[in-house]
Amino acid sequence: MMSQMNYLTSDKICDQVYASIKKVTDLWQSKPHLAVILVGEHPASLRFIAHKKKQASLLGFGFSLINLSSNCLEEEVYDLINLLNKDKKVSGILIQLPLPKSFNTWQITQAIDPNKDVDCLGAFRMGQFLINAYKVLPGTAQAIRLLCNHYNISVIGRNVLIIGSSNLVGKPAAIWFSQQEATVTISNLKTTNLEQLVKNNTIIVCATGAANAVNESWLNRHHIIIDIGTRIKNSKVYGDLNHETASKIVNQITPVPGGIGPLTVAALMMNLTILNPQYGNNDEIF
Amino acid sequence: MMSQMNYLTSDKICDQVYASIKKVTDLWQSKPHLAVILVGEHPASLRFIAHKKKQASLLGFGFSLINLSSNCLEEEVYDLINLLNKDKKVSGILIQLPLPKSFNTWQITQAIDPNKDVDCLGAFRMGQFLINAYKVLPGTAQAIRLLCNHYNISVIGRNVLIIGSSNLVGKPAAIWFSQQEATVTISNLKTTNLEQLVKNNTIIVCATGAANAVNESWLNRHHIIIDIGTRIKNSKVYGDLNHETASKIVNQITPVPGGIGPLTVAALMMNLTILNPQYGNNDEIF
Repeated sequence: MMSQMNYLTSDKICDQVYASIKKVTDLWQSKPHLAVILVGEHPASLRFIAHKKKQASLLGFGFSLINLSSNCLEEEVYDLINLLNKDKKVSGILIQLPLPKSFNTWQITQAIDPNKDVDCLGAFRMGQFLINAYKVLPGTAQAIRLLCNHYNISVIGRNVLIIGSSNLVGKPAAIWFSQQEATVTISNLKTTNLEQLVKNNTIIVCATGAANAVNESWLNRHHIIIDIGTRIKNSKVYGDLNHETASKIVNQITPVPGGIGPLTVAALMMNLTILNPQYGNNDEIF
Repeated sequence: MMSQMNYLTSDKICDQVYASIKKVTDLWQSKPHLAVILVGEHPASLRFIAHKKKQASLLGFGFSLINLSSNCLEEEVYDLINLLNKDKKVSGILIQLPLPKSFNTWQITQAIDPNKDVDCLGAFRMGQFLINAYKVLPGTAQAIRLLCNHYNISVIGRNVLIIGSSNLVGKPAAIWFSQQEATVTISNLKTTNLEQLVKNNTIIVCATGAANAVNESWLNRHHIIIDIGTRIKNSKVYGDLNHETASKIVNQITPVPGGIGPLTVAALMMNLTILNPQYGNNDEIF
């Protein structure tokens, strides 16, 4: 299935990014060090963290996982972030989402020092991204950028639909495409005319995390699908779409797994590199 | 013309906002003080500044205009911002845009201390707005919020087209509507199907600053038009549309002048109030 011509696979892109990162960081005396905060033991989170740990290790980067119990207090997360902010050994801090539902996720992520905010979820880094002022991008935006560059997917003047408007995925995707002069529509659960929107747009970004976000009968051979959804069911990863059906209809589609997911991990390692003080004011290298 | 039923005028909304601000700030020992930096003597800028000065004075707020010559160095603007950042008498700093074309406008605006960033154009305040984390909004977003609240314009699930994707106007408008669960499309100069988009959307936000952004023949009686454009020609203010024609077709339309413009000044005074240390952690009052 993965060998079909219209699958936008990401393994080669990741190889290139990691080679570029190694070229820069191999010259450094001390390597970047990523600290990951995990609350509870969500199976999908454990899987994503294992992927990050593996890539960090392949690059020779340091990695620490701090696992708080699922019934810890929000206060404990703040205390931990404050400790890691001050820890000179730690160059990047990441809170593995989702946090427990009772926690104020977006307030907690704001506690991370912007110089260590490798997920780019704090107000300062998000704002820099929004006004197009810095080279550190949220993982989703960087992943889409790498994908479109690699496959020469032209974006200027194109009609792009983002299904889902979350801070983590939908908003960064919409902002990136709009900055590239695409015409962007952002839908959400209250959208009443999704079928019409899917038919009127060429690039469709699925960012709902829910199955069957798009009815495959709405798709046609001009569509390019970027599926950012990642659900885990019976220890297999699924996207927002039925890829077996969709891939037979559309022009191009990112597979799940093997599409956007690995690119967001590569983006994380890019941010760990770029935010490291040793990187300095280098020009863009990736 | 202004008495037509379908004009979304803003004078009463402004009166209410100013009354709310006065109620809060009349109790304060020292009033907010706005410092405006103007480079050159752009006639539209002088006009907008006069409006801000008048409203500040009506509220009893302090106001300083620092006018640098049009051939000053960028360095001088940075030096001035640094001085104003430290000046305890100054509680809000605003750079009147546009700056000279050779200047890096977005880098300069980043130099303003976030605690005095009343225009909300710095990365930190923009980011807070993007992730919906704070009550200080960019002027355009606040103006639209006040307008929709006052006229009970329902937004959830509605199709909204933003024509123009600037950091100053288009992006904040798009983000605000998306946060209110509207389905939002952002177009730009590279958009190829503007006519279709205008016809497919109900609320149309014109944010181009150019004449005839929308062909009036595309409009129908269901449209609600929010015209944020402000051009000055022969010392008269014009929006993006021909309002005489458009107002006869559409359901509702903001006049220019007397629509969004005065609301952005009211929004500025709100931000001057909310960011003042004396405001503390008050709940939303406006």
